[in-house]
Amino acid sequence: MNILFVGDVVGSAGRRLLLRLLPELREQHDATFVVVNGENVAGGVGITPKIADELFAHGVDVITLGNHTYRQRAIYPYLDRHDAILRPANFLKSQPGHGHCVVERAGVRLGVVNLSGNLFLKAGRPAFAEADAALHALRGRVDHVLVDMHAEATSEKVAIGWHLDGRVTAVVGTHTHVPTADARVLPGGTAYITDVGMTGARGGVIGVKKELAIESLVTQMPVRFEPSEDDPWLMGVVISGTSPLRADRIEQLLVPAPAGFR
Amino acid sequence: MNILFVGDVVGSAGRRLLLRLLPELREQHDATFVVVNGENVAGGVGITPKIADELFAHGVDVITLGNHTYRQRAIYPYLDRHDAILRPANFLKSQPGHGHCVVERAGVRLGVVNLSGNLFLKAGRPAFAEADAALHALRGRVDHVLVDMHAEATSEKVAIGWHLDGRVTAVVGTHTHVPTADARVLPGGTAYITDVGMTGARGGVIGVKKELAIESLVTQMPVRFEPSEDDPWLMGVVISGTSPLRADRIEQLLVPAPAGFR
Amino acid sequence: MNILFVGDVVGSAGRRLLLRLLPELREQHDATFVVVNGENVAGGVGITPKIADELFAHGVDVITLGNHTYRQRAIYPYLDRHDAILRPANFLKSQPGHGHCVVERAGVRLGVVNLSGNLFLKAGRPAFAEADAALHALRGRVDHVLVDMHAEATSEKVAIGWHLDGRVTAVVGTHTHVPTADARVLPGGTAYITDVGMTGARGGVIGVKKELAIESLVTQMPVRFEPSEDDPWLMGVVISGTSPLRADRIEQLLVPAPAGFR
Amino acid sequence: MNILFVGDVVGSAGRRLLLRLLPELREQHDATFVVVNGENVAGGVGITPKIADELFAHGVDVITLGNHTYRQRAIYPYLDRHDAILRPANFLKSQPGHGHCVVERAGVRLGVVNLSGNLFLKAGRPAFAEADAALHALRGRVDHVLVDMHAEATSEKVAIGWHLDGRVTAVVGTHTHVPTADARVLPGGTAYITDVGMTGARGGVIGVKKELAIESLVTQMPVRFEPSEDDPWLMGVVISGTSPLRADRIEQLLVPAPAGFR
Ligand SMILES: [Fe+2]
Ligand SMILES: [Fe+2]
Ligand SMILES: [Fe+2]
Ligand SMILES: [Fe+2]
Ligand SMILES: [Fe+2]
Ligand SMILES: [Fe+2]
Ligand SMILES: [Fe+2]
Ligand SMILES: [Fe+2]
Repeated sequence: MNILFVGDVVGSAGRRLLLRLLPELREQHDATFVVVNGENVAGGVGITPKIADELFAHGVDVITLGNHTYRQRAIYPYLDRHDAILRPANFLKSQPGHGHCVVERAGVRLGVVNLSGNLFLKAGRPAFAEADAALHALRGRVDHVLVDMHAEATSEKVAIGWHLDGRVTAVVGTHTHVPTADARVLPGGTAYITDVGMTGARGGVIGVKKELAIESLVTQMPVRFEPSEDDPWLMGVVISGTSPLRADRIEQLLVPAPAGFR
Repeated sequence: MNILFVGDVVGSAGRRLLLRLLPELREQHDATFVVVNGENVAGGVGITPKIADELFAHGVDVITLGNHTYRQRAIYPYLDRHDAILRPANFLKSQPGHGHCVVERAGVRLGVVNLSGNLFLKAGRPAFAEADAALHALRGRVDHVLVDMHAEATSEKVAIGWHLDGRVTAVVGTHTHVPTADARVLPGGTAYITDVGMTGARGGVIGVKKELAIESLVTQMPVRFEPSEDDPWLMGVVISGTSPLRADRIEQLLVPAPAGFR
Repeated sequence: MNILFVGDVVGSAGRRLLLRLLPELREQHDATFVVVNGENVAGGVGITPKIADELFAHGVDVITLGNHTYRQRAIYPYLDRHDAILRPANFLKSQPGHGHCVVERAGVRLGVVNLSGNLFLKAGRPAFAEADAALHALRGRVDHVLVDMHAEATSEKVAIGWHLDGRVTAVVGTHTHVPTADARVLPGGTAYITDVGMTGARGGVIGVKKELAIESLVTQMPVRFEPSEDDPWLMGVVISGTSPLRADRIEQLLVPAPAGFR
Repeated sequence: MNILFVGDVVGSAGRRLLLRLLPELREQHDATFVVVNGENVAGGVGITPKIADELFAHGVDVITLGNHTYRQRAIYPYLDRHDAILRPANFLKSQPGHGHCVVERAGVRLGVVNLSGNLFLKAGRPAFAEADAALHALRGRVDHVLVDMHAEATSEKVAIGWHLDGRVTAVVGTHTHVPTADARVLPGGTAYITDVGMTGARGGVIGVKKELAIESLVTQMPVRFEPSEDDPWLMGVVISGTSPLRADRIEQLLVPAPAGFR
């Protein structure tokens, strides 16, 4: 069983690169499942039903989200109607959508849980308790579990990795848009990485046109951000597991756009 | 010219590992300069004169700091008296210490600048303007410049990398204690990495005993943190440059404690 | 039915002034109930069992708390054992203590609910939902309800006033240590004030010695705060109600220490 | 010499009420100067040249602003061209506008300084140092000085009051939109109030339609705020002084809209 997880897809460049590379990555890594964080796919903020449909049509099995979940109003009913698109489980129960799901491919059942950090981010309920609750809800219904912890602070992410070590197949972090160099299988058998990075323009500032991001920080004036198109990369990980709820391996993917990509 | 830069040294385990590995790393990488972020070296928070003296005595050329600079009161006068220990340049001018220095080794003059991010961290003045001011102050007095941007938000760190690209030899990020997988020489010739990581116990939560960090997040109660000793690693980068203010190469170092290390 | 509510009692000066003035205020306002916010009573941060016992012994009926609840470890078991001391109801259920209680005096049953804001303050669960849950739990068991909303942001406090208008006798704000000039009975019959202020040294900075508070802000260096003793005032409100869950009147009390008070 | 200072004017209801009441308040209080915080006057966020012109045309002498200064792009050049409209002095020097001015009426020269808090608000430079710098710049050029400290935290506001006590005529706080009950002349002769409150719809939540503010807090979903028109009040203070840089008196004004106001 192999899971290809792809970090925050940012804007048009990120989306196009994902769709372009997906077939070969899937084949190359013999991916049983493809899970993608899509919180920045609609022009940099949020996701629309049309884009979500497009991702599913191209073979994405589960879409996770994060702090930008509710930036596009059209997605609200879609989040309730579609099982395989997740928003952080520790948002309020009353907010549109849900935080975990189960998908089955090739006879393997994968549970996916989406969480939001509580430091520097607004999430109505605590991540750690909700992680435990989600695992309880999935018990007996899954062969593997992948957790996407969408968070700013490394402390929360590393801690939830240890907290879930030996209880889930993988804990992957998202949100900072910068890949970390700490992918490994923890002693209890859980694959872990603090941040998968983004799928978007590495020539920008975490996906935003670099001139605009710098202007904002230098001038401290309001600046309207636009997604960069400069030097897109796909960033992800492949997690492989043979025993239930355990990983054998986690491999980091940092793939530049192919020559001539537009 | 080669600079060995070592990320936030955390507690006793980090300090001992640094001192243990320094001779061989220095030789192996033919390090002209050794620069170390020491903001967590005294029991996890701050630095003392005794420890700073020890680091200098073992061949560290420059010590940089960060948000924990002022946790140990004994260091205040030391910061004013010693040229080669830096606190972020964009702290208030009235705060103890200074934010840049020049050291010379083997006929090469290295300027080092320490900055603090302004997002989620308390720094009295803006990092970007102070970076420009420090470079202005160093003009004509240095062959190379290394900038340690101690910051939480990836946006600030990536942006300052681009802002300084082509004007300094290297911009290295610190503070999150997790190494990033984005080390590279930017198009203008500046070596860049978002975070070098820490030198401390990878078996903890960014250096803290993992049971304590998890307890704090799960219970939301006050917990007294202690540095972990579990599975120490040294994390750093080596930057090599031949032309003034330009890097040829940046290499990431992720080195576990040798067998039998205690 | 009259409720005397006294704002955050700060340090020794605040505690002594409260105990000094309590008998005459109780008589003067014919107070059926005395409710006191005690989150700063132990040297400025938190409360101890000994001080809580002392307040109860002097006729305080209910003690409410806030963000400083857990600063004194000795209070943890006390919070679980004593019904009439409250910490914010929207802390985690697993944290020591509880967030509402009922006390009966002169045949009148008063429910008291303690809440924490979620903006700029750390509270594990949302205030608004928990307010509704607490009222549900009190239904049929009380004649009157007083809510202490301990919060920084005026938006949250004004909003919860409107949210509960017509459903409780009074919503009083605490935490900023500065009394507001907006006490009134809202159209639905709920007495409201954004902040009651503190009972402590008005000659300080919200209870802290003013030289220390100014030094901290001017120098941006760590400063150990001590409670001020300069010019203590008692700040509170008296809420009067004759119909169940409705207030007729809210009167603001701003009372300087009597001449010769020490 | 009397200064009428009016707190944050919010939206159309606030602006219309201000213009309606200004003539009689000016006469009633024999106001030498009228200073108005206008950061929310354009639909709740920011100010436009047209509205600023209208305020000046109706006899406002100085307009102060705050964290919403740059929400309306059209005001940027206006801030540079017009002396009597201020943005916080401790914003970056490079940001449009300036932070202090001097106006003369009836032979009296009034300096006005606008500051922003540094806690919970984004201001590029520290308020306390900039306050000192502004007073230095005004030395010898003014008979009286009024400081508008636009800040969230009561600690910063009370502290700057004490810091400037005896050096300026008045320190008035703005931003929270709720008037405080602590107006007084400090021992050194400086009139002080932590917050003047707002001029806008008291039937809303700090000026916003109450249904929208409550919806936002209850649902934690994005909500587009609109200014309330319900129950507008003018909130301000009148400061009177006869000796240079000293106040004799500060009087709080809390004035409901007259019957039939629309
Ligand atoms: Fe993202
Ligand atoms: Fe995010
Ligand atoms: Fe650190
Ligand atoms: Fe740090
Ligand atoms: Fe308090
Ligand atoms: Fe508090
Ligand atoms: Fe305002
Ligand atoms: Fe404001």
